[in-house]
Amino acid sequence: MGNDINELEEIGKRAKKASRMLACLSTEIKNLALKEIARSLIESGTEILKANRQDYDEARASGMNDAMLDRLLLTEERLKSIADDVNSVASLPDPVGEVFDMRTMPNGLLIGKKRVPIGVIAAIYESRPNVTIDITSLCLKSGNAVILRGGKETLRSNIALAKVASAALHKTGIPEGAVQLIEDTDRSLVNKLLKMRDVIDLVIPRGGAGLIKFVRENAAMPVVAGGIGVCHTYVDKSADINKAVAIVYNAKVQRPTVCNALDTILVHREVAAEYLPKVAKELGKVSVELHCDETSLAILKKIGGLKLVSAVTDDWGKEFLALIAAVKVVDSLDGALTHIEKYGSGHSEAIITEDYTSAMRFLNEVDAAAVYINASTRFTDGSQFGLGAELGISTQKMHARGPMGLKEITSYKWIIYGAGQVRP
Amino acid sequence: MGNDINELEEIGKRAKKASRMLACLSTEIKNLALKEIARSLIESGTEILKANRQDYDEARASGMNDAMLDRLLLTEERLKSIADDVNSVASLPDPVGEVFDMRTMPNGLLIGKKRVPIGVIAAIYESRPNVTIDITSLCLKSGNAVILRGGKETLRSNIALAKVASAALHKTGIPEGAVQLIEDTDRSLVNKLLKMRDVIDLVIPRGGAGLIKFVRENAAMPVVAGGIGVCHTYVDKSADINKAVAIVYNAKVQRPTVCNALDTILVHREVAAEYLPKVAKELGKVSVELHCDETSLAILKKIGGLKLVSAVTDDWGKEFLALIAAVKVVDSLDGALTHIEKYGSGHSEAIITEDYTSAMRFLNEVDAAAVYINASTRFTDGSQFGLGAELGISTQKMHARGPMGLKEITSYKWIIYGAGQVRP
Repeated sequence: MGNDINELEEIGKRAKKASRMLACLSTEIKNLALKEIARSLIESGTEILKANRQDYDEARASGMNDAMLDRLLLTEERLKSIADDVNSVASLPDPVGEVFDMRTMPNGLLIGKKRVPIGVIAAIYESRPNVTIDITSLCLKSGNAVILRGGKETLRSNIALAKVASAALHKTGIPEGAVQLIEDTDRSLVNKLLKMRDVIDLVIPRGGAGLIKFVRENAAMPVVAGGIGVCHTYVDKSADINKAVAIVYNAKVQRPTVCNALDTILVHREVAAEYLPKVAKELGKVSVELHCDETSLAILKKIGGLKLVSAVTDDWGKEFLALIAAVKVVDSLDGALTHIEKYGSGHSEAIITEDYTSAMRFLNEVDAAAVYINASTRFTDGSQFGLGAELGISTQKMHARGPMGLKEITSYKWIIYGAGQVRP
Repeated sequence: MGNDINELEEIGKRAKKASRMLACLSTEIKNLALKEIARSLIESGTEILKANRQDYDEARASGMNDAMLDRLLLTEERLKSIADDVNSVASLPDPVGEVFDMRTMPNGLLIGKKRVPIGVIAAIYESRPNVTIDITSLCLKSGNAVILRGGKETLRSNIALAKVASAALHKTGIPEGAVQLIEDTDRSLVNKLLKMRDVIDLVIPRGGAGLIKFVRENAAMPVVAGGIGVCHTYVDKSADINKAVAIVYNAKVQRPTVCNALDTILVHREVAAEYLPKVAKELGKVSVELHCDETSLAILKKIGGLKLVSAVTDDWGKEFLALIAAVKVVDSLDGALTHIEKYGSGHSEAIITEDYTSAMRFLNEVDAAAVYINASTRFTDGSQFGLGAELGISTQKMHARGPMGLKEITSYKWIIYGAGQVRP
């Protein structure tokens, strides 16, 4: 099975056609299809796991590292969890059809907005096969047709998963163009896909910085991408030291490989001598490596058993995605704000403080998708923010910012009910 | 006075810096500055009109046509109207700082969104000098820094207008980088501007199809553009014929040179013989030229005094921007929907009908920024839709669709008030 350029165009046309039907589908039918996908993910479990095992074995033989292998792996339990997520999406409210901002104008025109799907979304992603089903269910629920393009290393898994989705759509009478997987992993097809502006309304890249950069630079249509999260937590001079230890520990350690994990600890000079040894001891228990500026290094090198490194310029503004944190002592809140403005990536930033004015200034002045007072940046997530599900986290300001749920992959149209009005 | 590439970079840096201050400015200060601009537009009237007169004379000498000359011309009355518009923007509610979707999560985190400016907006526009002030006032009110790049033919007018804006900003303590005009009209500077992704967050092109296409194809940052409006009005078999005549007349004639003006009349076969002669007589009074399909031509050629032309393929999907309309007879509502899907530009589409189901189907199935029942498409406009002012009309689905007011040039950030929460 494969797709050449011509077939790609057919895929595009089918998606466009399907998107028009999807836009008018009832919530009931969409939910039926989602429940059918969830049900048959379990029913077809053996087949899916067998395909995944082949991907896994091949990737291992080719020398893939354990972390990547783990991301690739499906198990019965993981499949169950994917199916549960699909059922969760079915239980979320349908964003499409919401009518809002309605008002009657002085001339009697009733004017407002109605939420509609975006149209056709292309998702380009790497490694984790669950993304195939996550994106499928979010797009289906929001009435968007989706063209999926997963990584080569999970092709067999993706084919098996997409087959389940297609069969479920077929069973519920939804056109096959609603969910399509590109089975050919030739890179040139991605280039071609990114130029298909007439049929694809939005591209969502999910994966490493390289993939996102490539898509941004080559896509002829809008791109919504998250990407790098260089997250700071600033411990203010008035911070509750215990809270600051717990929050920084959580932000760094709870899941270090994701974009909302802490990268740099900023500490006010007045509390550095008290705070840094306490947090370093906790972080040291799980062997977090600390890349320290001169001041923090001077404080911490008196303590034994820590992994300390002198920070280099590149450590500021670096997304570590590992048990590593940069540490810097600043003279003031302004020092922290300036550092974050210079090195932050606009993802998630936090202040730990008991001072009201500092808290408000941080909230107002930091320009990021999510700004926290006294909480862990690890909360930047669709389900933690109450969106129910998440397509990714946007660090851009246009269209959607922060976690993207169902509503964030919709648009609206203005609807106008007249009675013969003309413009004077 | 001129700007070379290096100066362009300085303009960018100043705008970025100013945007950070603008984001935190109180509504009071922003309104003061707007009122000062309005006041001094009148005060400096002689100077502005003198500069505009030079532009006008030069344009006339170079052979510019009357319609274009009229767009370029400022008069005392027009200046007064521009100043009034600035005062109107001052009286609109400030979108920035609005806090919405706040909720307390089960773990006690208070999470919501706060509306923030986008940052730096570049506006690239043609001919009409009022755009300089319109865009300045909308950007200022919404806390965005703006870089203006007007047309060569209105350079002196734009310099005079921008000078007034700069002086008003200076007087109210707003940094000069908030509003900057590029005074060099060298085209290569636009190319350079469109690549300055690090400082410019959004580009808004206003002008002809050529300009918009150029910006879309060359901008490295997001673009929100309106552009072509190919607008249909479909007269259903159940239409109230009098309403249908009045609405089509208004949509075509009230201001034919703008994007929401009617381009194609679609008529149901069953009412064509009754409707077409009536509407054609009205349109004929102002010499509207009708490009007719075979069926409509057969009906209309029996009537004298009309400007009739046999429609060619290019007439469908054409934006006339003149007293010309294409006319086509369709067999059914589905025929109209198919035609609009094929030839519409997603701007404004209307149905004239007394049939409830036809009205609802049209509203639901047509994919356009504004969809009307029994009203003129000429209403697609920021002030007519209650937005108070308008930066342009977006025909895209990402970020904003339809008329763009103040809110449409903002973004939001998630704000999270914690009490020490960490993610389990």
